[in-house]
Amino acid sequence: RVNGQRLWQSLMDLAEIGATSKGGNCRLALTEEDRQGRELVTGWLRDAGLTLRVDQIGNVFARRPGRRDDLLPVVTGSHIDTQPTGGRFDGCYGVLAGLEVMRVLDDHGITTEAPLEVAIWTNEEGCRFVPVMMGSGVHTGIIPLEDALRATDRQGDSVAASLARTGYAGEVPVGSQAFDAYFEAHIEQGPVLEAEGIPIGAVTGSLGLRWFDVVVTGQEAHAGPTPMPYRRDALKRAAALLGEILALADSHQPNGRVTCGELDLHPNSRNVIPGRVRFSVDIRHLEPEVLDQMEQALRETCTRYDEPGQVTVELQEVQRVAPTPFDATLIDLVRRSSEALEISYRDMETGAGHDAVFVSRVAPTAMIFVPCEDGISHNESENADPEDLEAGTNVLLHAMLGRAGI
Amino acid sequence: RVNGQRLWQSLMDLAEIGATSKGGNCRLALTEEDRQGRELVTGWLRDAGLTLRVDQIGNVFARRPGRRDDLLPVVTGSHIDTQPTGGRFDGCYGVLAGLEVMRVLDDHGITTEAPLEVAIWTNEEGCRFVPVMMGSGVHTGIIPLEDALRATDRQGDSVAASLARTGYAGEVPVGSQAFDAYFEAHIEQGPVLEAEGIPIGAVTGSLGLRWFDVVVTGQEAHAGPTPMPYRRDALKRAAALLGEILALADSHQPNGRVTCGELDLHPNSRNVIPGRVRFSVDIRHLEPEVLDQMEQALRETCTRYDEPGQVTVELQEVQRVAPTPFDATLIDLVRRSSEALEISYRDMETGAGHDAVFVSRVAPTAMIFVPCEDGISHNESENADPEDLEAGTNVLLHAMLGRAGI
Ligand SMILES: NC(=O)NCCC(=O)O
Ligand SMILES: NC(=O)NCCC(=O)O
Repeated sequence: RVNGQRLWQSLMDLAEIGATSKGGNCRLALTEEDRQGRELVTGWLRDAGLTLRVDQIGNVFARRPGRRDDLLPVVTGSHIDTQPTGGRFDGCYGVLAGLEVMRVLDDHGITTEAPLEVAIWTNEEGCRFVPVMMGSGVHTGIIPLEDALRATDRQGDSVAASLARTGYAGEVPVGSQAFDAYFEAHIEQGPVLEAEGIPIGAVTGSLGLRWFDVVVTGQEAHAGPTPMPYRRDALKRAAALLGEILALADSHQPNGRVTCGELDLHPNSRNVIPGRVRFSVDIRHLEPEVLDQMEQALRETCTRYDEPGQVTVELQEVQRVAPTPFDATLIDLVRRSSEALEISYRDMETGAGHDAVFVSRVAPTAMIFVPCEDGISHNESENADPEDLEAGTNVLLHAMLGRAGI
Repeated sequence: RVNGQRLWQSLMDLAEIGATSKGGNCRLALTEEDRQGRELVTGWLRDAGLTLRVDQIGNVFARRPGRRDDLLPVVTGSHIDTQPTGGRFDGCYGVLAGLEVMRVLDDHGITTEAPLEVAIWTNEEGCRFVPVMMGSGVHTGIIPLEDALRATDRQGDSVAASLARTGYAGEVPVGSQAFDAYFEAHIEQGPVLEAEGIPIGAVTGSLGLRWFDVVVTGQEAHAGPTPMPYRRDALKRAAALLGEILALADSHQPNGRVTCGELDLHPNSRNVIPGRVRFSVDIRHLEPEVLDQMEQALRETCTRYDEPGQVTVELQEVQRVAPTPFDATLIDLVRRSSEALEISYRDMETGAGHDAVFVSRVAPTAMIFVPCEDGISHNESENADPEDLEAGTNVLLHAMLGRAGI
């Protein structure tokens, strides 16, 4: 059994870096804060006797040798980058649960048959740099390395430059180490487990996700002397369009989701009629056919609002991730580990994307969910119960041992 | 008669500082670009033999002595700060027309009875720092000096610090020099003069303006796992609210205006349901009663959208400027100067606020408008005809001489 107190302490120590005033975390991918977080965690991994590799996109892999090094490793991990107003558990829990597994095996002097690894994936959150789940996407060949290195944040700073600056531009070729299996522990980020009082979710797969940018272009003009009928107000058009887009999921309940999380006005000055508005659209659903329908409705709505010569509307696709089922054998291993530990569980889907979603394309994959308070995440008040975190880590330990052999 | 070519050249020289790629200007108030602009223009004013004073809010006054220095000065001026995507004429024309008047008097060795002054007012645009028309507002006592010095931009940088940094924290007490009269030449920033082919507007007064901030607060949560019915999406609420607010002027045409020019989303991340939206509201009308009606409708609309415990809506007043009539004698002087020069003119209102609006509370004031291309301003493509600019400056010259006496 893992040491829940030690796990909690590591989570709280990591949360000191990039701590926000409201008790959350801001460690955007490949910033100075993220670098400090990585230094802390890789230090712990080294102290636990693990050997580190850093690949070309900055993914870190920490290896604990098995008795048979010809076997592929059983891997676990997640990410430690956060949202601008993120919480202390999203991602960090998966990495530090992996560290705790390594530490408890050391405590008991256990060597596994197959090697074990802990992975820290680069830029999972996708808020500083798009595409989202970048490190795992590059590792699995879904995202070309060159595209990822070229991606820039809103200030024009690139992934390549940020990797170099933080010292995580590794030399190990991406995807060079195949995995026998991948497990990822994570907070649910939704309300189901807490509402039902169940500590473990055996995740069977993920919702598909499609990301778009909408650009509405009118004409900047002075707020005072420009009569209303002369105006080409990009925000007025965008407001009406946003209303329709945010209602697109209404006819696809309960599994349809639409979010516009980013919006930038140009020139964003109090006495200037907005000349341009750019906003993001995030649509999600479990079924590819429904995603197609929602995308089609989005395209039709944008076309309906596009009025050349007056106010135009352009839609650009940014990223798409298909709905992804996880590996039946590994899901079953998670269920059986919970049963063996006498911890209740239920099957569930994940509405959030995870590195596991990309890794599942190249290796058998499963996820272990634990409840989070009020189902809230991507919020500074994100919280989780230390006992649930410990339970999830025990399930992870048993599942990894079950797969790697002792 | 003024030298139109020299005036144009000075405008183009100033427009080199903070030039934007689309032919406009970005010299936000009290930034390094604004400092460079001020250095250039004050250099020209000194070269024209004028004596400079800088007051505590950074307003610059350049004096040309008269035969009788016991008389109050006849003043002209405007501002040289710009919008983020501003043009080359808004404000700069008024200051450089004043400079040209001084230069042409020197050319002809003319001394006036009363002294003349050219004023450069600080932060007229109000886009980096609120309140708008700050320098003239402080000069006239409408805005307390302490409030203005404390104002900060979105990065938290204050007016006081910016004045010190740029070297324009002057020592002359604000408002210490009374004016005999104030004239301001400006591009119309609206479509009327161009449409009617008339080069001069004799401005009889200005629309009133009321500025507000609206803050919509919901709850940040993850775009993926958070089911639609659980959401407290601040942007969804704001979009519907914006639609209603931007229609508030519809029943008050042709003189009612509503603009939402600034909008900031928090945390502004693609996969986070927005927790907070702040946007600005600018309402304008000629009649105080209609402004009251529009404000009342704005307040009622915000209250209707405010749902405590779910998504709240708060309205804060930011600034108000009453509709302001200009001085009958000076307006008439502008009309008669145009007639004497055989330039056609028409009476008109200004929809934009100007330093003249505040100065008119403490001194007889009038404005001279010239056409601008397509009525467009607060836009990088803002343009004006050199001949119109020259005509307006000739009217200014005649009106100032008429008032100051030769
Ligand atoms: N787990 C998580 O927050 N992932 C971010 C990617 C997404 O938007 O689903
Ligand atoms: N003239 C001008 O652009 N003034 C800015 C103040 C306003 O918003 O009216």
